[in-house]
Amino acid sequence: MLTLWHCEDTRSFRPLWALEELDLNYDLKMLPFPPRASRKDYFAENPLGTIPLLVDGDTRMTESCAMLQYLSLRHGQGRFAVPTEHAEFGDYLNWLHHGEATLTFPQTIYLRYSRMEVPERQLPQAAEDYRLWFLARLKLLEPALSDGRDTLLQSGFTMADIAVHYAIELAVLLGLRDDLPPETLRWFDGLTTRPAYQRAKAKQRSGAEADNLPPMPF
Amino acid sequence: MLTLWHCEDTRSFRPLWALEELDLNYDLKMLPFPPRASRKDYFAENPLGTIPLLVDGDTRMTESCAMLQYLSLRHGQGRFAVPTEHAEFGDYLNWLHHGEATLTFPQTIYLRYSRMEVPERQLPQAAEDYRLWFLARLKLLEPALSDGRDTLLQSGFTMADIAVHYAIELAVLLGLRDDLPPETLRWFDGLTTRPAYQRAKAKQRSGAEADNLPPMPF
Repeated sequence: MLTLWHCEDTRSFRPLWALEELDLNYDLKMLPFPPRASRKDYFAENPLGTIPLLVDGDTRMTESCAMLQYLSLRHGQGRFAVPTEHAEFGDYLNWLHHGEATLTFPQTIYLRYSRMEVPERQLPQAAEDYRLWFLARLKLLEPALSDGRDTLLQSGFTMADIAVHYAIELAVLLGLRDDLPPETLRWFDGLTTRPAYQRAKAKQRSGAEADNLPPMPF
Repeated sequence: MLTLWHCEDTRSFRPLWALEELDLNYDLKMLPFPPRASRKDYFAENPLGTIPLLVDGDTRMTESCAMLQYLSLRHGQGRFAVPTEHAEFGDYLNWLHHGEATLTFPQTIYLRYSRMEVPERQLPQAAEDYRLWFLARLKLLEPALSDGRDTLLQSGFTMADIAVHYAIELAVLLGLRDDLPPETLRWFDGLTTRPAYQRAKAKQRSGAEADNLPPMPF
């Protein structure tokens, strides 16, 4: 049995969505955000105190985009992955890493210094620096999507879409939608109509309600 | 022919080291750091202005850890990768993403606000916040290496070692060696004796000298 530890609408939404796309059985454990603040017992599960945590027997993973590759190849017969010999294999891998390392992390600095810190520790300069840093890193998306297609790769929907989509979702949640370019928004909105995306959204909401979790800070 | 755009001792050292481990032919293009400041022509190659850039025919990649997977599987017959069906496959993928997304990015905030910015834009609080953030994220390494082994995985040396090693190398370059835990340092120092690591170091140095590049800021 797969177990996913998750906070609503955080980066752990990536593996949650992937689990739904692959139609896998899993146990969803919801946590308040950030878990390291109010769920000290969670450090026994994940010494980092971060989400996501994916447990599959002896395998324990903490990186959301690594989970996308893992779930597809180990539990999905390679569905939504690009084969090694395919012309888009390099692009596929690049988007998988780009979604988190380049497009999500800078937003967490914006979030931290504009909203999460107590007022005397907020840093408007750092928040603005990394809002701009994030926006400047969107430049690979518009050319990739300029032919009007609905997925990042010509191959169709892949785990790369999930990896990058969450980065854009976080920007929207943080109030940056008006800063986002048009093809990126068209692609982003299109993928939210996927049934698996909507099932993942519904499951995290009902889980948070069942556990009576406090609202998220974004 | 593979072409790698690189700045000395930056994250693009990862694919450089991998190219040497796999004994591949490549063209190494050295750039001053950061290229977006002094080599505006580089934006024609990579719209982000970031390094690394790996060009392989029509494939253009910008994420250093994605390149590790790509080089091994597309050009190295899977050498230094872990097969999908292996018990350590999930760990392998996790380290590959962890090295950059979790362990390298926070250090760039420390670097930026303690050294790269002009004095009036330096932010000691942000620098210290992300120095501590980085150190708190090292907790997966010590348990993984506590049995005295020389590589992150029992499988032996893999691309995961390169992914994480550069994060530790950056910490050492930034003067944080005394903050690093013992098993992590033992593993880190051990890998620097690999011939391919040393060849990569020598090639970037002679390339920087040939191009008369200014010294790096760390």
